[in-house]
Amino acid sequence: MIVILKPRAEEARVNALMEQIKQQGVDIHFSRGTQETILGLVGDTTHVDEDWLRASDIVADVRRVSEPYKLANRRFHPQDSHIDAAGRLIGEGTFTVIAGPCSVESEAQLLEVATAVKASGATCLRGGAFKPRTSPYSFQGLENEGLKLLREARRVTGLPIVTEIMSETQLDDFADVDIIQVGARNMQNFRLLKELGHSKKPILLKRGLSSTIEELLMSAEYILAGGNENVILCERGIRTFEKMIRNNLDISAVPVIKQKSHLPVIIDPSHAAGIAWMVEPLSRTAIAAGADGLMIEVHNNPKAALCDGAQSLNPQQFDHLMQDVRRRVAFEEKTLL
Amino acid sequence: MIVILKPRAEEARVNALMEQIKQQGVDIHFSRGTQETILGLVGDTTHVDEDWLRASDIVADVRRVSEPYKLANRRFHPQDSHIDAAGRLIGEGTFTVIAGPCSVESEAQLLEVATAVKASGATCLRGGAFKPRTSPYSFQGLENEGLKLLREARRVTGLPIVTEIMSETQLDDFADVDIIQVGARNMQNFRLLKELGHSKKPILLKRGLSSTIEELLMSAEYILAGGNENVILCERGIRTFEKMIRNNLDISAVPVIKQKSHLPVIIDPSHAAGIAWMVEPLSRTAIAAGADGLMIEVHNNPKAALCDGAQSLNPQQFDHLMQDVRRRVAFEEKTLL
Amino acid sequence: MIVILKPRAEEARVNALMEQIKQQGVDIHFSRGTQETILGLVGDTTHVDEDWLRASDIVADVRRVSEPYKLANRRFHPQDSHIDAAGRLIGEGTFTVIAGPCSVESEAQLLEVATAVKASGATCLRGGAFKPRTSPYSFQGLENEGLKLLREARRVTGLPIVTEIMSETQLDDFADVDIIQVGARNMQNFRLLKELGHSKKPILLKRGLSSTIEELLMSAEYILAGGNENVILCERGIRTFEKMIRNNLDISAVPVIKQKSHLPVIIDPSHAAGIAWMVEPLSRTAIAAGADGLMIEVHNNPKAALCDGAQSLNPQQFDHLMQDVRRRVAFEEKTLL
Amino acid sequence: MIVILKPRAEEARVNALMEQIKQQGVDIHFSRGTQETILGLVGDTTHVDEDWLRASDIVADVRRVSEPYKLANRRFHPQDSHIDAAGRLIGEGTFTVIAGPCSVESEAQLLEVATAVKASGATCLRGGAFKPRTSPYSFQGLENEGLKLLREARRVTGLPIVTEIMSETQLDDFADVDIIQVGARNMQNFRLLKELGHSKKPILLKRGLSSTIEELLMSAEYILAGGNENVILCERGIRTFEKMIRNNLDISAVPVIKQKSHLPVIIDPSHAAGIAWMVEPLSRTAIAAGADGLMIEVHNNPKAALCDGAQSLNPQQFDHLMQDVRRRVAFEEKTLL
Repeated sequence: MIVILKPRAEEARVNALMEQIKQQGVDIHFSRGTQETILGLVGDTTHVDEDWLRASDIVADVRRVSEPYKLANRRFHPQDSHIDAAGRLIGEGTFTVIAGPCSVESEAQLLEVATAVKASGATCLRGGAFKPRTSPYSFQGLENEGLKLLREARRVTGLPIVTEIMSETQLDDFADVDIIQVGARNMQNFRLLKELGHSKKPILLKRGLSSTIEELLMSAEYILAGGNENVILCERGIRTFEKMIRNNLDISAVPVIKQKSHLPVIIDPSHAAGIAWMVEPLSRTAIAAGADGLMIEVHNNPKAALCDGAQSLNPQQFDHLMQDVRRRVAFEEKTLL
Repeated sequence: MIVILKPRAEEARVNALMEQIKQQGVDIHFSRGTQETILGLVGDTTHVDEDWLRASDIVADVRRVSEPYKLANRRFHPQDSHIDAAGRLIGEGTFTVIAGPCSVESEAQLLEVATAVKASGATCLRGGAFKPRTSPYSFQGLENEGLKLLREARRVTGLPIVTEIMSETQLDDFADVDIIQVGARNMQNFRLLKELGHSKKPILLKRGLSSTIEELLMSAEYILAGGNENVILCERGIRTFEKMIRNNLDISAVPVIKQKSHLPVIIDPSHAAGIAWMVEPLSRTAIAAGADGLMIEVHNNPKAALCDGAQSLNPQQFDHLMQDVRRRVAFEEKTLL
Repeated sequence: MIVILKPRAEEARVNALMEQIKQQGVDIHFSRGTQETILGLVGDTTHVDEDWLRASDIVADVRRVSEPYKLANRRFHPQDSHIDAAGRLIGEGTFTVIAGPCSVESEAQLLEVATAVKASGATCLRGGAFKPRTSPYSFQGLENEGLKLLREARRVTGLPIVTEIMSETQLDDFADVDIIQVGARNMQNFRLLKELGHSKKPILLKRGLSSTIEELLMSAEYILAGGNENVILCERGIRTFEKMIRNNLDISAVPVIKQKSHLPVIIDPSHAAGIAWMVEPLSRTAIAAGADGLMIEVHNNPKAALCDGAQSLNPQQFDHLMQDVRRRVAFEEKTLL
Repeated sequence: MIVILKPRAEEARVNALMEQIKQQGVDIHFSRGTQETILGLVGDTTHVDEDWLRASDIVADVRRVSEPYKLANRRFHPQDSHIDAAGRLIGEGTFTVIAGPCSVESEAQLLEVATAVKASGATCLRGGAFKPRTSPYSFQGLENEGLKLLREARRVTGLPIVTEIMSETQLDDFADVDIIQVGARNMQNFRLLKELGHSKKPILLKRGLSSTIEELLMSAEYILAGGNENVILCERGIRTFEKMIRNNLDISAVPVIKQKSHLPVIIDPSHAAGIAWMVEPLSRTAIAAGADGLMIEVHNNPKAALCDGAQSLNPQQFDHLMQDVRRRVAFEEKTLL
């Protein structure tokens, strides 16, 4: 961490500040120039608060050199992490396809989709029981009934289930969910993250619509710091000025996250695109970028879907996609789970 | 709402779609052109789901003409709303100044700041007991002890208190808080919004860092739809590409919200700027834009603050600001509460 | 095009507006509802000015249904265009790799890079003679001397040359350049676009840092409307809030442009990433997304480069990249030019 | 400037790099820590190229401490600059209102608007003769005929004229224009900026739609470095994700620019808003933020305007605005020119 002091900072005050910094267990390298004076903080600066430094009126600026996350950091954990989701290892070298409807609507709908996606090769079943909807007038999910249907679909197909949690008060109800999803709008719901840290469940953490990659890694750090190492990251499109697409898939996030962190990262092309025909080209880029998996919305009858029908594939389209995914995963010398 | 059909949509399917739409209680005006066919949906389309329409493979596009929010909409509620916060009416014509520390740190700190901001003319006391921090290693607030100190500061100064809630599980603990704040990162925590709708407390709802104004109004709609009419909106800076400031104050949001909605809107220049010297110029623009109030961070010793010290004013700076605010509020022919 | 009228627009004024619209050669379908009245404009609305309609005080909103570009539009030109660049056809089915230094620095440098990239399989040589630099104190290019060296490198290697034009006054000097590049910062330099429309040269048009895809197609339309059909589009990263990368490669732009337009589109991963190690993963995503080519910065000694050294590959790295590109282009069943 | 070296950089290579840096006339303070080694570059680093440093494979990162602009920098020019525009001094303490039509359409139109805005108190007349339009099918301006009409309007009203230049080839035609405007899309047309640096004309430089404040100041630096000190900056809205407004007025840019630079800065609320009713509230915020002036679109008959009618005020609305502007400028203790 580098602290840039103001040009005319008094020596006594500089010394006092340096004393306070040293008490936090870090060393300082001091460089006084004609225009600015620089303090180089050396050692473990994870706990040194940038805001506290910036508030000093002799400080002109503060720049972090090392990352503020530690447990999520590849520097201190060079090997790729693999997350065990009901016996399947998600991470570098394998490829996961999580598929299913945006929301669970009925037993018939869910079983039809679940059976179809399994037949096509999906490795996990997704389905929303509790739906975070922008409008209070939109369908909010079947709630606990939806969870029950997901368990039923797991029993029938053998696929592990992935579903979204809305609040830490639901943890008991989610006790036998295989992978708990944290939605983009809850990426910085820190209460929820803390409680998930006390669980041992695999957590699928989606990136917020305008969250930086560093913020995503800091949210993962909340879960890891609580003792839960089972975090899977998910990029699902960010918000930009472009109007032709719903969200802008940040494909660079895959190589950047892979370099900065040891955690697996998957792509949700359905939410990024917002429209079904783009799911296939975006899936291709995800595989090529090095992602560890995909999360795809599939509905037996997209035009009657209660939510996000426009971006859902029907089972035939999904089957067609999976044939392409299989060839590409093999090309990348990875194993489809 | 306008539905644009694809050029070669079959007549039978168009008729079937029109039938389904009519069953939702809206009329349709039909225009067939050489290049596209357009359905104009007329009536109350609040409950018609755009996604459902987009999922039809004969639909090329859907455009909303009327707003998807109703209770927050000025069209159906032309008079300005005024929210009663412990006897003070917040809304058009009055001007509120909420001031206090980012986080409650100790009894001495809080009482010193509270007494000072009251003396300078603040009308409410803010202070964080539960802090949403990006890093799990940052100070997370004094929690319930912080709430206790806020009550004590209210007893001493008589100022109503404003503090941030993190989860719907805290509602009992917040029962005697005067204004409950929903932070930017929780703007779309829909579970929390629903529960706040069942309360009668004034809610200060902050705009998310990349939320559109429509999304902010939809989040307000969640609270209003639950039966709680006491919503105050707060703009606190959005995320853009600019690097010289922490967030970009979206000053246009004030006139836009005032035109679209009857709810009061205040500005938080401290979080928008991220740096203390900019609080004063941004406060001036907020008053000129027509905002109904300000929310300002004040700390007795910013450079020792446990959180957001860089953007906090000290009591002398705040007193100086309030002298300017008083003149400008009078110029706008409003009453400082 | 749809025109939404204000709720209480007077009939006489509505009729007058409709008359004016019809005089522009388009038909109108009229729908009067309880809340709004809608005019559906049918026919060729390319020349109808949205701003003119919006200025009418009986108009609430205007929405375009059909695209404002015509010559660049796939709807009116369903076959993919192929641009002949010195005998090589750039477009769907083939794959082009344009490589070379950010800026031409000396005869030795350029010849070394040109020979190396040719040996590795590049199909065109790029090199900047005139450099658009943010700072007036940065190296501005060898200018006409740089053009001379590019011609020399073409003579030696046989590779067609691509270089950036800065102003329409340079057209004579660029007469024997094989592909003229328009940089991101000049994407809306309309004077330059118009003059390029009067040329027959292939034009490589880069997307501006915050330009929408529609604006990129409208800039292409300027060149096409002047009579020059030889336009190649280039996506090179857009500006977002993310700080870990220089620009954010908008990979969705490839399938979107391919759907909306018949023009070829290539990707510049070097400028998108801003850092050499990301060029390879981004190149992989470009091929998978369906791009028609790549534009890559290569320098014989990146750490001594006068410009953009950080993002340049050295010849060994480029050779390694090309081996991977060759395999992937074959996988996509395309022909490397 | 700070250079952060990679953890295991070899000593010989570090020494070689330091030698190369010192040859550029700057001193180095060296700090070796356990995790990283830091070079603090001290002295005038304006000419040290960040890209060159980043390209070294022993360099992990480079951070600028001092600004890359010098002539535009308030640090080296603490007094506010005042630009003499045909005898009126634009800058801190005065307030300028430039008004007129988006484009010059006819003698009658221009004279009617010019006479009206003068009567209401405008201090300069704006009007576009050459129009940068997104679509080649939109009205492109009256060109040289427009310039002639502007001269005529100046003769009649005595108001100095402001009009936009599109290319450096037009400099002779603009020889008697009082203030030459560089549009947002040309902010980084470096050829044009260089030529304007050789003129002595006042230049009104508009910020690009997604340009950072630093880039705006670097573009000003191009003009200043050429020898022309007469630069007026103009903020006109930036591009964000918000859809309810055309551009997002970055009001913070005013205090930031005033702190970083000595150059005057004015606001264009018409382009920021894109809609006439927002011009007045945004103008109020501009005055409160400390801007040195406004640039407002006025049309005698906005609904018949050939360009940007939706955002134009009519003369009555402008007169009403000016009454408010006058009161507010007096409140700020500035002089309306």
